Amino acid sequence: MPSLYHQPLCPQSRFIRLALAEHGVEPQLIEERPYERRREFLALDPAGETPLLIDDTGLIVPGAVTIAEYLDETGGVALGENRLLPSDLAGRVEVRRLVSWFTQKFYGEVSNWLLTEKINKRFMTNGGGAPDMDLVRAARANIRYHLHYIGYLTQQRNWLAGDKLSYADLAAAAHISVADFLGDVPWDEDETAKLWYARVKSRKSFRALLNDRVPGITPPAVYADLDF
Amino acid sequence: MPSLYHQPLCPQSRFIRLALAEHGVEPQLIEERPYERRREFLALDPAGETPLLIDDTGLIVPGAVTIAEYLDETGGVALGENRLLPSDLAGRVEVRRLVSWFTQKFYGEVSNWLLTEKINKRFMTNGGGAPDMDLVRAARANIRYHLHYIGYLTQQRNWLAGDKLSYADLAAAAHISVADFLGDVPWDEDETAKLWYARVKSRKSFRALLNDRVPGITPPAVYADLDF
Repeated sequence: MPSLYHQPLCPQSRFIRLALAEHGVEPQLIEERPYERRREFLALDPAGETPLLIDDTGLIVPGAVTIAEYLDETGGVALGENRLLPSDLAGRVEVRRLVSWFTQKFYGEVSNWLLTEKINKRFMTNGGGAPDMDLVRAARANIRYHLHYIGYLTQQRNWLAGDKLSYADLAAAAHISVADFLGDVPWDEDETAKLWYARVKSRKSFRALLNDRVPGITPPAVYADLDF
Repeated sequence: MPSLYHQPLCPQSRFIRLALAEHGVEPQLIEERPYERRREFLALDPAGETPLLIDDTGLIVPGAVTIAEYLDETGGVALGENRLLPSDLAGRVEVRRLVSWFTQKFYGEVSNWLLTEKINKRFMTNGGGAPDMDLVRAARANIRYHLHYIGYLTQQRNWLAGDKLSYADLAAAAHISVADFLGDVPWDEDETAKLWYARVKSRKSFRALLNDRVPGITPPAVYADLDF
């Protein structure tokens, strides 16, 4: 059984948990707090970040994008019509563009700040303290244009990158889900984006994520409500 | 002829210029300053970042990693033994891990600060001003452990990710080259890393990069010296 080192509210880990579930892979989940810089974890990969996958042969696959490519290369064709990285060149470019958008741009402008300031700082023994509310406010301002971009794309397409569900939807929904857990998604501002998210979070692959809880933080009622 | 929107001292653009040259593709180079947020450029890709490739069919391929994957999918097999993303699974994981290390981690901890503070701020009409020397100092401190990591890896392997030159070497050398242009690589600290870099910068694909100049900045003498 493969092992996945993850953090319950790390958006990059959540993207890969969704990707694994859509590929029908059930990993052993091992919770890791990267900010603790645990020696045994750094020995697996010196970058020391979640997610990190160890497959059945012992191959260490670190980082969300590298894991997503690995899963497509080992199991993508078997998914047939449901492949998450399309087979055609232009489709692959579009999915990778959007995966990069959410795993890097959205992460840098929204989810990293929310995760660090509102969640991780609660558990840090060094470097913790009160959340920096300037960063939280910046994240809340930035998320609005990302939400409108999701709405803009899904007005023209069934799913974020085209006619079919892809890694783009999983990456975007994983990142949005962390902000949603914290009550920081202004859903009223974009009805189309809200409908898209309701469709993604209704998928079976999403269930385990919605059940995750963190001590001391109660998500808003809509968080796990599949009908909003 | 494909077009590449790039910045001469943007490390992500340099990575792709090297990758194109190794693939034998000579693009039309179009200089773009992403911080100007030029409307026509944003219309090509709303992320608005260099590099961005437009291929002969008109397909827009934005972002260094997406372009690298595209080049491998369209021209990787034709490179035969010199393929830059290996054909075996473990090799691909290792190359992608290191590409991500340099395009994200090194970029975030070193080259983005050097590029923004020491180069881009000279040309910004809005938001420019004096470089923030705290950030420059942080970049100079951080580059040391990256240099040692390169030295550590190339003590055990011919090239960064294994026996053969790969995208990992091109990404690393592209990022290092920008710091080197600015005189910010402490070469004395790691002889093995220095030897590795001398080998990469001697490649034909590197020549055009070493000839780039920016008004008002003179690189140190060693920058374009193939023997250091």
